[in-house]
Amino acid sequence: MNIGVFDSGFGGLTVLRALLERLPGADYAYLGDTARLPYGAKSQATVARYAVSSAHFLVDEQQADYLVIACNTASALALDAIRAAVPVPVLGVIETGANAAEASTRTGDVLVMATAATVESHAYSAACKQRGLRVIEKAAPLLVPLVEEGWVEHAVTEEVLRIYLSDLLEDSNYAGFEPDTLVLGCTHYPLLRANFERALPPSIRVIDSAEATATQVTAALCLPENPCHPNGEPRRRRFYATDSVAKFRNLGSRFLGQSIEQVELIDLSG
Amino acid sequence: MNIGVFDSGFGGLTVLRALLERLPGADYAYLGDTARLPYGAKSQATVARYAVSSAHFLVDEQQADYLVIACNTASALALDAIRAAVPVPVLGVIETGANAAEASTRTGDVLVMATAATVESHAYSAACKQRGLRVIEKAAPLLVPLVEEGWVEHAVTEEVLRIYLSDLLEDSNYAGFEPDTLVLGCTHYPLLRANFERALPPSIRVIDSAEATATQVTAALCLPENPCHPNGEPRRRRFYATDSVAKFRNLGSRFLGQSIEQVELIDLSG
Repeated sequence: MNIGVFDSGFGGLTVLRALLERLPGADYAYLGDTARLPYGAKSQATVARYAVSSAHFLVDEQQADYLVIACNTASALALDAIRAAVPVPVLGVIETGANAAEASTRTGDVLVMATAATVESHAYSAACKQRGLRVIEKAAPLLVPLVEEGWVEHAVTEEVLRIYLSDLLEDSNYAGFEPDTLVLGCTHYPLLRANFERALPPSIRVIDSAEATATQVTAALCLPENPCHPNGEPRRRRFYATDSVAKFRNLGSRFLGQSIEQVELIDLSG
Repeated sequence: MNIGVFDSGFGGLTVLRALLERLPGADYAYLGDTARLPYGAKSQATVARYAVSSAHFLVDEQQADYLVIACNTASALALDAIRAAVPVPVLGVIETGANAAEASTRTGDVLVMATAATVESHAYSAACKQRGLRVIEKAAPLLVPLVEEGWVEHAVTEEVLRIYLSDLLEDSNYAGFEPDTLVLGCTHYPLLRANFERALPPSIRVIDSAEATATQVTAALCLPENPCHPNGEPRRRRFYATDSVAKFRNLGSRFLGQSIEQVELIDLSG
């Protein structure tokens, strides 16, 4: 089993980290399209074009036979385009987050915090509504830069998160919601999971979409948790980036939770 | 006179704003390469490739006869490549900032605050040292997202700026500097000029590189401040972006200080 994991940058490494914990027996190829990040500020047509070329790289050149789109923007704006472009199963983090929210909520009222682009796409709203849930979304553009600055345990981050959550809970209150579930709708946010849990009332459960994705990939593949590799070969973990491999190694290791030894620079600009 | 102004995004509109105040009689074509921003996270080779294609668009297709690189990253990493690629004069914001610092300082000790990429390029250091100045640079990655979030008059921004400036002044003190000048080394920062002036001791003067650039373009072109346009035609202000024109209009108007009516979407991905 060769699982391709795709993100515009480093955030998707939180999804790979959760996958490695649950399915250490698979081979993995991770692609961060770092030359063209962030997808969040770009239009649907541009995101779809970039994501499809990235998916082709993982499937056609890296022989991935299962594709995880560990990028909320690409999952929101380009999942259909990717599925039409490659002949393997494709799972996106929006649907896995919505599935986990459905499994978690008792009241049916769900909150989502994400980047501006993900919120503007209303992809979580659509996915939650399909599952009979009510949802309120809130864009939190400063959280990604705060995580990338390394200010995870920092008073400024606590204050920014308090402001965003207070706005979101006010909107929720105003709409007469009784939320019991909040989805972390960005692959950077798992690094702030403890901050979210501290800042939220204990009645609201935090759904980490990286963990939710890994759980659902495991279920979809019907694999044993730690299968033997065919021929006893060592498992392969390959990392590809479209820009600075040094930055990928340094920043990426924080997201993956282990050091990344080798990253190969590739060119998708065509 | 047809002046082309180039940035990876919206920040360069602070430079255009200063140019429009000083040289309202010229024609302007502004290009924001928004599909490929931010340049700040990208390698020199990638930034040079993007910047050269953007310069070609302004000179070859928009007939600019003077080019202002209103993007610190492109000025730091790609100025020579741009000058080699187009047959018109090219002025970059790093050299104009360094010139203004040289004119301002009495002690010869200069501070620079900029994005991580600009600082890592040490382009301000090199330009200041060429002018016989000592310089200490500090990366401030959160300031651009704070400005783009609209949190200009905001306690969080005051606190983030206080932390960054306190680090910078500590480094400066440790090095035995007597700084009297701080260069805003990012075209987003002019929107925070008042915040910088409040947070700094009064002995340190703030150099706004957008204003410095406009002053030096005016001097270089030897133009009267408000020349009549040939044939009495109305002056042209054209705006081009490589992604979402709606976002360009909305966010860009804040940087330009006036509303932007029309933005044309172009494709440089070629």
